[in-house]
Amino acid sequence: MSKTKAGIINVTGYAGVELARLLYRHPEVEITSVTGRSAAGQKLAAVFPHLADIDLTITAELGEVDVAFSALPHKESAKECIPLLKQGIKVVDISADFRLKDAADYPKWYGFTHPAPELLKEAVFGLPELYRSQIAAARLIANPGCYPTGAILALAPALKAGIIEPDIIIDSKSGVSGAGRTLSLGTHYSEVNEDVSAYSLEGHRHLPEISQELALLRPGPTPSVTFVPHLIPMTRGILTTAYARLSPGTIASGEKGQAELTGIYRDFYKGESFVKVAAASPHTKHTWGNNLCIVYPSLDIRQNRLIAISAIDNLVKGAAGQAIQNMNLMCGFPETTGLEGLAVYP
Amino acid sequence: MSKTKAGIINVTGYAGVELARLLYRHPEVEITSVTGRSAAGQKLAAVFPHLADIDLTITAELGEVDVAFSALPHKESAKECIPLLKQGIKVVDISADFRLKDAADYPKWYGFTHPAPELLKEAVFGLPELYRSQIAAARLIANPGCYPTGAILALAPALKAGIIEPDIIIDSKSGVSGAGRTLSLGTHYSEVNEDVSAYSLEGHRHLPEISQELALLRPGPTPSVTFVPHLIPMTRGILTTAYARLSPGTIASGEKGQAELTGIYRDFYKGESFVKVAAASPHTKHTWGNNLCIVYPSLDIRQNRLIAISAIDNLVKGAAGQAIQNMNLMCGFPETTGLEGLAVYP
Amino acid sequence: MSKTKAGIINVTGYAGVELARLLYRHPEVEITSVTGRSAAGQKLAAVFPHLADIDLTITAELGEVDVAFSALPHKESAKECIPLLKQGIKVVDISADFRLKDAADYPKWYGFTHPAPELLKEAVFGLPELYRSQIAAARLIANPGCYPTGAILALAPALKAGIIEPDIIIDSKSGVSGAGRTLSLGTHYSEVNEDVSAYSLEGHRHLPEISQELALLRPGPTPSVTFVPHLIPMTRGILTTAYARLSPGTIASGEKGQAELTGIYRDFYKGESFVKVAAASPHTKHTWGNNLCIVYPSLDIRQNRLIAISAIDNLVKGAAGQAIQNMNLMCGFPETTGLEGLAVYP
Amino acid sequence: MSKTKAGIINVTGYAGVELARLLYRHPEVEITSVTGRSAAGQKLAAVFPHLADIDLTITAELGEVDVAFSALPHKESAKECIPLLKQGIKVVDISADFRLKDAADYPKWYGFTHPAPELLKEAVFGLPELYRSQIAAARLIANPGCYPTGAILALAPALKAGIIEPDIIIDSKSGVSGAGRTLSLGTHYSEVNEDVSAYSLEGHRHLPEISQELALLRPGPTPSVTFVPHLIPMTRGILTTAYARLSPGTIASGEKGQAELTGIYRDFYKGESFVKVAAASPHTKHTWGNNLCIVYPSLDIRQNRLIAISAIDNLVKGAAGQAIQNMNLMCGFPETTGLEGLAVYP
Repeated sequence: MSKTKAGIINVTGYAGVELARLLYRHPEVEITSVTGRSAAGQKLAAVFPHLADIDLTITAELGEVDVAFSALPHKESAKECIPLLKQGIKVVDISADFRLKDAADYPKWYGFTHPAPELLKEAVFGLPELYRSQIAAARLIANPGCYPTGAILALAPALKAGIIEPDIIIDSKSGVSGAGRTLSLGTHYSEVNEDVSAYSLEGHRHLPEISQELALLRPGPTPSVTFVPHLIPMTRGILTTAYARLSPGTIASGEKGQAELTGIYRDFYKGESFVKVAAASPHTKHTWGNNLCIVYPSLDIRQNRLIAISAIDNLVKGAAGQAIQNMNLMCGFPETTGLEGLAVYP
Repeated sequence: MSKTKAGIINVTGYAGVELARLLYRHPEVEITSVTGRSAAGQKLAAVFPHLADIDLTITAELGEVDVAFSALPHKESAKECIPLLKQGIKVVDISADFRLKDAADYPKWYGFTHPAPELLKEAVFGLPELYRSQIAAARLIANPGCYPTGAILALAPALKAGIIEPDIIIDSKSGVSGAGRTLSLGTHYSEVNEDVSAYSLEGHRHLPEISQELALLRPGPTPSVTFVPHLIPMTRGILTTAYARLSPGTIASGEKGQAELTGIYRDFYKGESFVKVAAASPHTKHTWGNNLCIVYPSLDIRQNRLIAISAIDNLVKGAAGQAIQNMNLMCGFPETTGLEGLAVYP
Repeated sequence: MSKTKAGIINVTGYAGVELARLLYRHPEVEITSVTGRSAAGQKLAAVFPHLADIDLTITAELGEVDVAFSALPHKESAKECIPLLKQGIKVVDISADFRLKDAADYPKWYGFTHPAPELLKEAVFGLPELYRSQIAAARLIANPGCYPTGAILALAPALKAGIIEPDIIIDSKSGVSGAGRTLSLGTHYSEVNEDVSAYSLEGHRHLPEISQELALLRPGPTPSVTFVPHLIPMTRGILTTAYARLSPGTIASGEKGQAELTGIYRDFYKGESFVKVAAASPHTKHTWGNNLCIVYPSLDIRQNRLIAISAIDNLVKGAAGQAIQNMNLMCGFPETTGLEGLAVYP
Repeated sequence: MSKTKAGIINVTGYAGVELARLLYRHPEVEITSVTGRSAAGQKLAAVFPHLADIDLTITAELGEVDVAFSALPHKESAKECIPLLKQGIKVVDISADFRLKDAADYPKWYGFTHPAPELLKEAVFGLPELYRSQIAAARLIANPGCYPTGAILALAPALKAGIIEPDIIIDSKSGVSGAGRTLSLGTHYSEVNEDVSAYSLEGHRHLPEISQELALLRPGPTPSVTFVPHLIPMTRGILTTAYARLSPGTIASGEKGQAELTGIYRDFYKGESFVKVAAASPHTKHTWGNNLCIVYPSLDIRQNRLIAISAIDNLVKGAAGQAIQNMNLMCGFPETTGLEGLAVYP
């Protein structure tokens, strides 16, 4: 049987190159086309020595494919994805261009007018743990942002169960690869090594995405969310620590409450291949290179507060791995295909 | 004029060795005695090559000194400090043994019965920005913990001004040196490198210290504090991100509110040598090796929340540097003496 | 068809745990037994969260297996491996206990008398690029050390071709995981982070192994080898830079010589799956998590010297991956089985 | 008495900003002018928060100074330094523009024709341990490169004593700050973190400088030098490992030889404030932020070879600190003035 032909648009960023690493070993898929502007004409293996086994030349235009992954920056991505859909190609867009349901959010948060607002309704937010059946039926997936993936998976069971107040603080710590392969002083080695800082205090672009999805998990008014990302001196990984008050009368206090809480999370993620509810505070290291999200719901007994922590690899569950998980669902492959490799520790 | 004789008890931990580095260059002080158990009998320079210029032998017992710094672990420190006070020696205790005012907290949080509860009243919490005059008159200083230093300095102006609700979340990110020089799997290089994790979710020992001090800054009930520390793959530095709702009607909304907020912080820290109120999100790197605390108060305009961030070097303002600042006050030296070196960047 | 039953002795060290990661995804093998002393009785997944999918309990004694990997320290490993051979179990020993052909080297370099000198002749040095057919026929493999793997692969083509003088300097740079999971001050995070140092200047234990193998590649007297390992602040990877004078008249000078040199290396490693001869200076990062050795032979035209560089992941090609490559050969599986995952970059 | 007025040309690179940090605390000097092109018009403290105490505006042109430090790139530096000399300003040039004695080396190694070859004879190579008296009398100092500083100090005593053959291998490991503050993919965090690589195998620009100075230390033909620099995932520090055969009959073999060797080095560096001859393999960490060079001469007894190791902070003894040491000599200040701060460890 012939393999599904996959293309990677903008293979030269970290999400693109991670797609190449994972798709190359996917048994149902063949990478047939990889694009990139500045690197067009070069062999993929020449630009990325770790992909030496892949014999492909980077081109300016996408070749013939069944499914396309766009790893372009926002605004540019929509422009390239729209014509592909018209050609009947399945699209997984790793940019933010189809994540927000309200077209008015694009000028506000991303500085451009959306070129195809009608597609915002059709596009499915590609978080399989929440939208599995819609993803399976979709032709356009808005692959979630790295921070939203960690934040939503940390909070979804609690919001769905109605055990927390809609007043939420999300404090995330990300490795530097999340900032991409484009050069900047903020990702210059000597600046970021041995340093921690918070950024985007005026409002990070992932905030509307997080708010939108958290609101859908819970009846009533949109939760009030404060989200602060931090840059950490490591390459991969996001740890998210989310805080919210428990709604009175929903969860027992003390040890008993912790057991109830764990039960709620275990039930919610029952059967999920890529979310594990841990019994201890997770380490991002245990997800390195792997599509896993480790979630740890914990109780601050003194203050009656939920502290929900999640750990992911921002380039895998936070980008390329989740994109492949979505493609698997869209194409009818087993959801874990090509994503079975364990995390590389230590 | 003869110099003040200083002794360092347990010089072989990171706080102790940092005291040696800083005191050696202090113009009013001479280090005359350094103690350590396992290393007793060895030359200080043999154990710590960067102290090659200091000609001292590590001893088991403290020699003759005017002022003693104890860098012993909790419980052991109190036992060694008490007799020194009786000899008329000024003591700066870097352990937690005199920080908590309520003796009942010691069995609960530290697992031992305090040997001298009467000293808890006398001991001054060594945060000069809050207790300068008391420190100057004291003979026993409880040098604050590294996390409390960052957290209290981030929140003090807002609490004092009564602009935030007493419901506070403190999310701290610490370099690994905070865990000390004692070996453990959690500080083994390959385990902590390229990793972030939260710890002590069941309640970190610095929580009662933070709560005690925050309560004193504000009339009314003790604030409800959730504190979660995180371990970051770097050697030095603590970044603290603190969150609290603004009290209605206290601060304008929008840009105007940010200016008011900055004004409140600038006024509070006016004239302080070691606290700077920054106009942008601070980096721990800018305090590396230096006694500075950089504070950045910020407004989440959408949610009407204070986000107050502080950056310190955990071994300097969070331990040895602050101890010397306290000693300067106790001994009548200018407060900045011996602490003038700028941060080492990058 | 039933799978080959594999056991890992001392699964709790970094080589052991890396074997578990890789073997778990090996299609011809089932891990049926994992041992460990201090962790006996615990679930493997409880000790190592990234192995959460593997349902095995760590035991004190090895269960029934077809092939055993010993990741024990030297001296202890031989003692455990010898009885296994008698039971007809194939053994890949990752320790040094069967690497040296001369039993007299054990008291000298490892401080113990070898318990089975007769096995030193039988054991095959498990570097498939040199001993492929012997490995396929062997029942006992001495898996090479991490430094020797990088050093020998960097120099073998040049020695075999007779183009260098037998006076060799090997300067290696290793990540910290090479020092294992046992706690020590030298691998304590705050000590090794932001630091580089040379060690074992009095003679590292891998020196006799390197000398033995280099001597076998070249007729005439044993080469004079100086080997200096360095510790680098990263978790995985060894970069080896080897220096030797070119033998007069063997290689052209200038550009032409570089082409000849590359040709010699390309010919030597023709058809090898796990050695790539690169056209540029390699990065250890491009082998992270993967069984590849990247070799770059280069000419110092001014001094008529070979500079041969190799990059490996010390835990994969330098330990667990190479052990599986050896097992594949011993068991008649395709050599690359279970080792196909690409390096995780960045 | 009035202070010496110092200017820093191109303060915005890492050498420039390190000069500012150290000069600000120099008791005999006042920084009166700092220049920078892209940052002209900005406050120094705004660009570099750790310099918050320094109240200076970055200008395009240098103001009135007694001594100027140029931290410009090569080629540009000479052009700015030449007119300053004519104005009677003492100049310490941190670039390579006056280091090489033979003007013909500039087109060959640096790609430009030297604008003032006559100054190459006058300029003094600013390594105080070799040229102290000439420096004291000079008006133009060519501050040594970071690699040459480490390499020459590691080898000088052995070459001067005539105990090694003139066939030398220098393998250096440098932190990333040596590559400067200008953005490049090779210094992008995610590329260089968890990676080691060799570079400039075709011939690094510091090679002619090293060869020139090593040749001057020894009668007879110019030594044959192979020099390979490596990039290490840390911010500061260079460790240099140099290898050379012992000349027959010059040094005893075995333990006795090691003592003789140490004696030769101790004698050579007797009275030096900034070179320490260590009794064990040095760590770059022990020089962090400090002007020290730690040298460890060691004997490979088996191969009768010298292994000489040195550790420096590339931005201090390898750049800004040594520049200040040179200025102290030129201005008649005690050589250690302003450089007394101990290394920041851990």
